[in-house]
Amino acid sequence: MIKSRGYAAQDVNKKLAPWDFERRSLGEKDVQIQIWYCGVCHSDLHQVRNDWAPGVFPMVPGHEIVGKVVGVGDEVSRFKAGDLAGVGTIVDACGHCEDCENGHEQTCHEGAVQTYNSKGRDGLVTYGGYSDTIVVKEEFVLHISEKLNLAGAAPLLCAGVTTWSPLRKWHVGKGHKLAVVGLGGLGHMAVKFGVALGAEVTVLSTSPNKEVAAKELGAHHFIVSKDKEQMQSVFRSFDFILDTVANDHDINPYIPALRTNGVYINVGLPVTPWQISSFALAWGDKAITGSGVGGLKETQDMLDFCAENNITADIELIAIQDINKAFERMEKGDVRYRFVIDIATL
Amino acid sequence: MIKSRGYAAQDVNKKLAPWDFERRSLGEKDVQIQIWYCGVCHSDLHQVRNDWAPGVFPMVPGHEIVGKVVGVGDEVSRFKAGDLAGVGTIVDACGHCEDCENGHEQTCHEGAVQTYNSKGRDGLVTYGGYSDTIVVKEEFVLHISEKLNLAGAAPLLCAGVTTWSPLRKWHVGKGHKLAVVGLGGLGHMAVKFGVALGAEVTVLSTSPNKEVAAKELGAHHFIVSKDKEQMQSVFRSFDFILDTVANDHDINPYIPALRTNGVYINVGLPVTPWQISSFALAWGDKAITGSGVGGLKETQDMLDFCAENNITADIELIAIQDINKAFERMEKGDVRYRFVIDIATL
Repeated sequence: MIKSRGYAAQDVNKKLAPWDFERRSLGEKDVQIQIWYCGVCHSDLHQVRNDWAPGVFPMVPGHEIVGKVVGVGDEVSRFKAGDLAGVGTIVDACGHCEDCENGHEQTCHEGAVQTYNSKGRDGLVTYGGYSDTIVVKEEFVLHISEKLNLAGAAPLLCAGVTTWSPLRKWHVGKGHKLAVVGLGGLGHMAVKFGVALGAEVTVLSTSPNKEVAAKELGAHHFIVSKDKEQMQSVFRSFDFILDTVANDHDINPYIPALRTNGVYINVGLPVTPWQISSFALAWGDKAITGSGVGGLKETQDMLDFCAENNITADIELIAIQDINKAFERMEKGDVRYRFVIDIATL
Repeated sequence: MIKSRGYAAQDVNKKLAPWDFERRSLGEKDVQIQIWYCGVCHSDLHQVRNDWAPGVFPMVPGHEIVGKVVGVGDEVSRFKAGDLAGVGTIVDACGHCEDCENGHEQTCHEGAVQTYNSKGRDGLVTYGGYSDTIVVKEEFVLHISEKLNLAGAAPLLCAGVTTWSPLRKWHVGKGHKLAVVGLGGLGHMAVKFGVALGAEVTVLSTSPNKEVAAKELGAHHFIVSKDKEQMQSVFRSFDFILDTVANDHDINPYIPALRTNGVYINVGLPVTPWQISSFALAWGDKAITGSGVGGLKETQDMLDFCAENNITADIELIAIQDINKAFERMEKGDVRYRFVIDIATL
């Protein structure tokens, strides 16, 4: 076994505190990574709180992991010690179901193994990236370019691919008008990707004071979504709306802003079901869709695209000792746009 | 003006009765059609009852029209007297907005003119196909092949294109598994088209006794949607679900039957909004979409496809004197699968 040190919640709703634990020994197909940075995703907080399902405790959160390879198993061919590497939200899947074969491992029919708060196919509990080292099967390790700011690259592994995946699936690019709803961890990545892919990007926000930030990220236009006149000005105008807001909100006022055949993409996953009128979709053949993270190949494609286009998340780097304070601030939306833990402080 | 005779509701909820009225004189770009057959669409009943919006009375319903051209204006080039012709749900649109230019005239930004219960761009009220003749702008007249059973062809103009349009938009065909929910006027056309386009078609119905009819229409499989075990057997199996049910119903039990990236298409237009969980769509990147009728070009494409593949609706031909009884039976779902009025009985 490999000794590891991290920050864990010993039980549901407990504050995170230092914890020593063990990871599995390096298998023939495994890569061991010394973790340098780990992003703080809102889902980390949800899971520590059992918001979605009963968690496995002690829980070491963290699935936006960047670091350096320090060891590889005998059968590993794509990585060697010294390489930069990343790990996202999943660390194993069956590899042979329809979804795995289609590069959609996140919905593996046998159940993908989450990076933490999950059980591996070997029965061992998984622990995440709020820790100094991790052992992961080669296929679930991503290459990270040396060109990238590594702390800013960490959130690409979840927030990045979550917005990238639907933009690519729907071929969003040049000639398209894309609206991004919400300007948080996900939203700011959506703006950067939308712009880099060649779309004309409008941020729709309830807060007029986010206009400067939206424009700094590259957005071409800014609309205050609470302002009926401003919303009327974008009636029937967007090919795609990418909604990144996690809090419950009524999406119906946005549907008329879609052009005929427009698509409303939700990645924010609000808890309360939407109420949707069948007529609102039929009038102009509109679609509503959802998306969650992305598969391994598209995650690597996204990382490569980021390296070519110099895209990383805008972050606040924190010491791991400040993680509980960061959770509190994140809950209030007081972060621009993602906390990333400097694991060197552990 | 041109004298016309039809069946009209003189006011909301009134029974239909014979009525003499006038249509506009033949303009340079107009085609006059002697009506032979007119399908009875559920929306005819909705409109006579003001279910959706206040109607224009007297109202002559009918937008599934087939007949023979008896006169054309000087500038008409695509039709001549003696040609077979069809008219669907709309008879005019602006022709220059984005949707018109994209062949999506039904959502014309200046407002498409409905075949009845509408006002033309000339300000005159439009009257539908429960009548002996109609005058329609050439661009809104469709060619009907002599190969087709003409009474059975009438419902193609609305029920046909309403199911055809989304199947084509989403490229449904060989290699796809398509489920059709509901087996009425729309549903039975969806089965025929799905099969003809090469998809593997399953009918999902609440009524076990519809299995024979579904198979007769060409469906490859039949599932009783109220039976949990049967529904479990189609978990994650369909690329597309085409829901044709007009009554309010919960669509959530059907979503898990979609494969990853599957699309739920609704053409039934139930009145009560759906309640949809964001997680249900995000898990497997699923989409819900709606669709209403189709544009002129795709209507013609559908009619040509029907001629090539010998597809018409399965109908009950009625005398126009029986229209009120037919409305009553239609309301109870007691029709297999569409009433068509034999206008010769007028």
